[in-house]
Amino acid sequence: MIIVMKQSATVKDIESVESRLLDLGFKTHPIHGDIKTVIGAIGDKRLLNVHAISQMQGVETLVPIMKPYKFASSELQHTPTIIDVGGVQIGGKEIVVMAGPCAIENEKDFVDTAISVKKSGAKILRGGAFKPRSSPYAFQGLEEDGLKIMVAGREATGLKLVTEVVDTRDVELVNKYTDIFQIGARNMQNFRLLSEVGMTRKPVLLKRGLSATIEEWLMAAEYIIAEGNHEVILCERGIRTFETMTRNTLDLSAIPAIKDVSHLPVVVDPSHATGNWKYVPALAKGAVATGADGLIIEVHPNPPSALCDGPQSLRPERFESLMDELRLVAQAIQRTI
Amino acid sequence: MIIVMKQSATVKDIESVESRLLDLGFKTHPIHGDIKTVIGAIGDKRLLNVHAISQMQGVETLVPIMKPYKFASSELQHTPTIIDVGGVQIGGKEIVVMAGPCAIENEKDFVDTAISVKKSGAKILRGGAFKPRSSPYAFQGLEEDGLKIMVAGREATGLKLVTEVVDTRDVELVNKYTDIFQIGARNMQNFRLLSEVGMTRKPVLLKRGLSATIEEWLMAAEYIIAEGNHEVILCERGIRTFETMTRNTLDLSAIPAIKDVSHLPVVVDPSHATGNWKYVPALAKGAVATGADGLIIEVHPNPPSALCDGPQSLRPERFESLMDELRLVAQAIQRTI
Amino acid sequence: MIIVMKQSATVKDIESVESRLLDLGFKTHPIHGDIKTVIGAIGDKRLLNVHAISQMQGVETLVPIMKPYKFASSELQHTPTIIDVGGVQIGGKEIVVMAGPCAIENEKDFVDTAISVKKSGAKILRGGAFKPRSSPYAFQGLEEDGLKIMVAGREATGLKLVTEVVDTRDVELVNKYTDIFQIGARNMQNFRLLSEVGMTRKPVLLKRGLSATIEEWLMAAEYIIAEGNHEVILCERGIRTFETMTRNTLDLSAIPAIKDVSHLPVVVDPSHATGNWKYVPALAKGAVATGADGLIIEVHPNPPSALCDGPQSLRPERFESLMDELRLVAQAIQRTI
Amino acid sequence: MIIVMKQSATVKDIESVESRLLDLGFKTHPIHGDIKTVIGAIGDKRLLNVHAISQMQGVETLVPIMKPYKFASSELQHTPTIIDVGGVQIGGKEIVVMAGPCAIENEKDFVDTAISVKKSGAKILRGGAFKPRSSPYAFQGLEEDGLKIMVAGREATGLKLVTEVVDTRDVELVNKYTDIFQIGARNMQNFRLLSEVGMTRKPVLLKRGLSATIEEWLMAAEYIIAEGNHEVILCERGIRTFETMTRNTLDLSAIPAIKDVSHLPVVVDPSHATGNWKYVPALAKGAVATGADGLIIEVHPNPPSALCDGPQSLRPERFESLMDELRLVAQAIQRTI
Repeated sequence: MIIVMKQSATVKDIESVESRLLDLGFKTHPIHGDIKTVIGAIGDKRLLNVHAISQMQGVETLVPIMKPYKFASSELQHTPTIIDVGGVQIGGKEIVVMAGPCAIENEKDFVDTAISVKKSGAKILRGGAFKPRSSPYAFQGLEEDGLKIMVAGREATGLKLVTEVVDTRDVELVNKYTDIFQIGARNMQNFRLLSEVGMTRKPVLLKRGLSATIEEWLMAAEYIIAEGNHEVILCERGIRTFETMTRNTLDLSAIPAIKDVSHLPVVVDPSHATGNWKYVPALAKGAVATGADGLIIEVHPNPPSALCDGPQSLRPERFESLMDELRLVAQAIQRTI
Repeated sequence: MIIVMKQSATVKDIESVESRLLDLGFKTHPIHGDIKTVIGAIGDKRLLNVHAISQMQGVETLVPIMKPYKFASSELQHTPTIIDVGGVQIGGKEIVVMAGPCAIENEKDFVDTAISVKKSGAKILRGGAFKPRSSPYAFQGLEEDGLKIMVAGREATGLKLVTEVVDTRDVELVNKYTDIFQIGARNMQNFRLLSEVGMTRKPVLLKRGLSATIEEWLMAAEYIIAEGNHEVILCERGIRTFETMTRNTLDLSAIPAIKDVSHLPVVVDPSHATGNWKYVPALAKGAVATGADGLIIEVHPNPPSALCDGPQSLRPERFESLMDELRLVAQAIQRTI
Repeated sequence: MIIVMKQSATVKDIESVESRLLDLGFKTHPIHGDIKTVIGAIGDKRLLNVHAISQMQGVETLVPIMKPYKFASSELQHTPTIIDVGGVQIGGKEIVVMAGPCAIENEKDFVDTAISVKKSGAKILRGGAFKPRSSPYAFQGLEEDGLKIMVAGREATGLKLVTEVVDTRDVELVNKYTDIFQIGARNMQNFRLLSEVGMTRKPVLLKRGLSATIEEWLMAAEYIIAEGNHEVILCERGIRTFETMTRNTLDLSAIPAIKDVSHLPVVVDPSHATGNWKYVPALAKGAVATGADGLIIEVHPNPPSALCDGPQSLRPERFESLMDELRLVAQAIQRTI
Repeated sequence: MIIVMKQSATVKDIESVESRLLDLGFKTHPIHGDIKTVIGAIGDKRLLNVHAISQMQGVETLVPIMKPYKFASSELQHTPTIIDVGGVQIGGKEIVVMAGPCAIENEKDFVDTAISVKKSGAKILRGGAFKPRSSPYAFQGLEEDGLKIMVAGREATGLKLVTEVVDTRDVELVNKYTDIFQIGARNMQNFRLLSEVGMTRKPVLLKRGLSATIEEWLMAAEYIIAEGNHEVILCERGIRTFETMTRNTLDLSAIPAIKDVSHLPVVVDPSHATGNWKYVPALAKGAVATGADGLIIEVHPNPPSALCDGPQSLRPERFESLMDELRLVAQAIQRTI
């Protein structure tokens, strides 16, 4: 921790800060510049009540030196985390594609879609049984019936399942059915829910919050890991900006940024980010070339009749041709799909 | 609903859209401009699967005519909602000030603070027993013990209580102690939690999400009201922008904007918005002059030792003088504090 | 300047950085923590090519200690700047109201408006002769004819003039007519234009850029002051955010934040910020109570027929009653209008 | 234009609006829904003073049907624009790479860099002679001397030149030297400068403003085209968001969005977007795979000693290997570099 003192700080102010730091068990290293003084404080930051210092007379600002996350940091673990979901490895050389409809609507459509996306090369089947919707009047999902349909999709194809959980009370239930928990963007800082999935031993796909910084996102991952569950997959799905031509702004820079500071795998959701199926293929290819470890793409047999997010869903045949295009892009960067 | 057809739409495209609308039970009113055609669709929008239409050949965009919220809208209720919390009226001529520490730390400090803010003119006592913190390593609150301390504060002063609930599983517990539920910014779109407090008959202070539009905020209120609980108090607490000199950007424009489209009362939290106690008095006065129905302000007997958000807390004596200033501002706009 | 070294930095990396700093004329103060080393560098930062250091092996990040602006900073000048515009003082106890139409359209309307706003208590007359418009097909202003009309308004009322300049080539021309130059939001980082008005000795009203941080805004002021013109008035006019119910988000927190770090006066433009006349009175009162040194408000005799920004303009009679309301608010905070 | 009337609008309100529209030369088509009335207005929108209508009694909102840009729109021109810069075609099958240092510092380094980037496959040479810098104390460029050095780089390599112009007064001068004008992000809405380069017949690389929507960006292009210069190349270079780990947020979604509504070519600047050379290769590949028509990349022989933006510059050898990687990605999407 570095404490920057104001230009107007007096010798007494500086001494008081040092004295407080020493009381708290820190070693101090003041540097007296021509205009300002800064004080380096060495010790266990958990001992430091940061506020106590920031409000002392003459203090301008505190500069943290250590990152606030630990388990999620590449400072702790240098090699990339590879998550094994029943044989499907996320974070390795292969780019894993997750596909399926936004919401599960009925068994026939879901199983047909599952068979189709498997044929195209998807390895994980997505589908929503609990849907967080902006409007209380919109379709909220089939709940446990939806989970049962998902299992039918898995049995028909061998694909692994990923589905969202939105309430701490449902974690146990969803755990019975899914292979990967999804935490949605709106729940990225629902800390109780994070802790609850952290107490299971299932992989968690953690979507970035609409206005979450990369650091806050990693802190959310830290909540899960701190409970003992190290299997966190980050999912970039667009952030909120002023632009209105796309639903959100897909932040592909987050991929190299995360690879720089963390060891966790990152997948990209171009469907929710753009809200428009026409833009999905271009951004799916862009995400792969940028270094994503996976994609999660909405596919629906008949988008105009979808109960949720039809406009962003690809038809199975468009998904199939996209997968062919993605394989070429993956190959160009020495990876596979 | 207005359907705008593309310039390149064919007669057949237009006919298909009309035909689909008629099948769905709508009356259609096409307007053929020189360059584009638009189709007005009249009927119950709940019948309309919007996606079905937006993805049809030749459709450029859909323009909704009705607001997505109903109960929260001033179109339904023209007079302002006044919420009575055991005799304290929120939304009337009097501006209601809520004050207290960020987190409840111990009974003595809390009760002392309660007595002090009551003396200064606060009507509601705030305090956090369940704290959503960005870091899993930060103080998370005293939970039920904190709630019991809150009650001691109420007993010592007669002030009403407002405290946050962060988990659907805790609603029943918190309901036993509090007078007003607080839903925090990070949970504004935790729809299950909204429904759960909607099923109680206690007032709910609904904080605006960090990146929530006013419309999304009103939709969150709609979730609560749709369950039968009409007692929603909106709380503006700053939105996330690119500016870093303040923690968030307090959006006081939200006050007149909400007064224009809704009947719900709005209070303002300058403490969380700025994250800096030095800016709190200026913005508290600004909020009152702009038309806020109340304020929620953090007060702590010794901010440097606070376990949470000390830098944004006022000392009791500064709060007292601020209340004196606020009374003059309220008077200038024909209201009282 | 503080150089934070990576956890993985070697002794050799640290020595290389120190050696480079010494070569550049700095004194170095390394602090070896348990996990990371930081190096304090003391000396004239103008000597320091920051990039040279930030890219050296083992460097994690650089932390500047000094603010990047100097003349605009309250570290240099502790007392507030008061700008005298022919007897009208901006930055003192009196809150100065500037009013008038967005664009100057014809002499009669302009002079009538001038007489009316003077009667209501405005001290400065605003009007646009050069209009920066998003569309090349929109009305671009009367140019020099507009400036002549402004002078007629001044002659009829004694009010001082403020008008925008948008091109370095027009500075000399506008200088002949106006009392205050306005630099619009879109030109806040048109550095050549800033330097050009910096070379005059007329006050400059510097609007905040749509996505400018407060620090960048002060750096823009620094461009003007660095040329020798110390008469800079900052004008908050809303920043760009995701919210769409108002045109921009008025950032009233900028008022106390600027008062904290700078000595320059701040005025607020609620008209452009909201884009909606209905919200202007509430936010004008809010700005005054928050501590603004002035307001700039659009007034038009017949908003529906205005050639520019009619929807945000007040009618003269609404402006008059607003001024009455503002006087009471100013009085409540011990200021005058 | 569609006029949506309020729920509370009276028959008389509706009649007044219709009557006003008829006076303005429009044909009106009212649609009376169960709750609200909307009025379709057909005619030449240039006749319509939008404000006149939006402020009438009972009007809720106006919905424009036509896009505000014309020449930049794919509604006017269906085939992509290909811009020929002395034989280098931008917007065709080949992806054009522009490379060079941020600022021109001296002839030797610049010519060496030019020779090197040409060898690696760049087709256009970039370099700044006029630099818009946030600080008045930073290096502002060599001006005409820099332009002369650029020409030496062209002569040594045959590469075409792109350089920024920041002042209307310099357009004639820069025109003597450059092959492509660059308009920087901070000047995207410097409308006078846009018009001035619009009056030349040289291609213009138009960078997206830091907080410009895609629509505003296309309106800026419209300013150039409206003066008769159709040779506009759009350049995405990151937008301002709340994220701080990258300097800006590169919005690759803008590529498919622009391809959807415009015929203009789009290039991407990953160097300015991220501000960090480590992230440049990943995003350069991502941009190509997403469909960019070109890239503009900063290359400097010795980034730590660069006078401007060293941290985002690639060394020539890293640029060379990146070009090899980009060729594979281009090939994977059936394009070339």
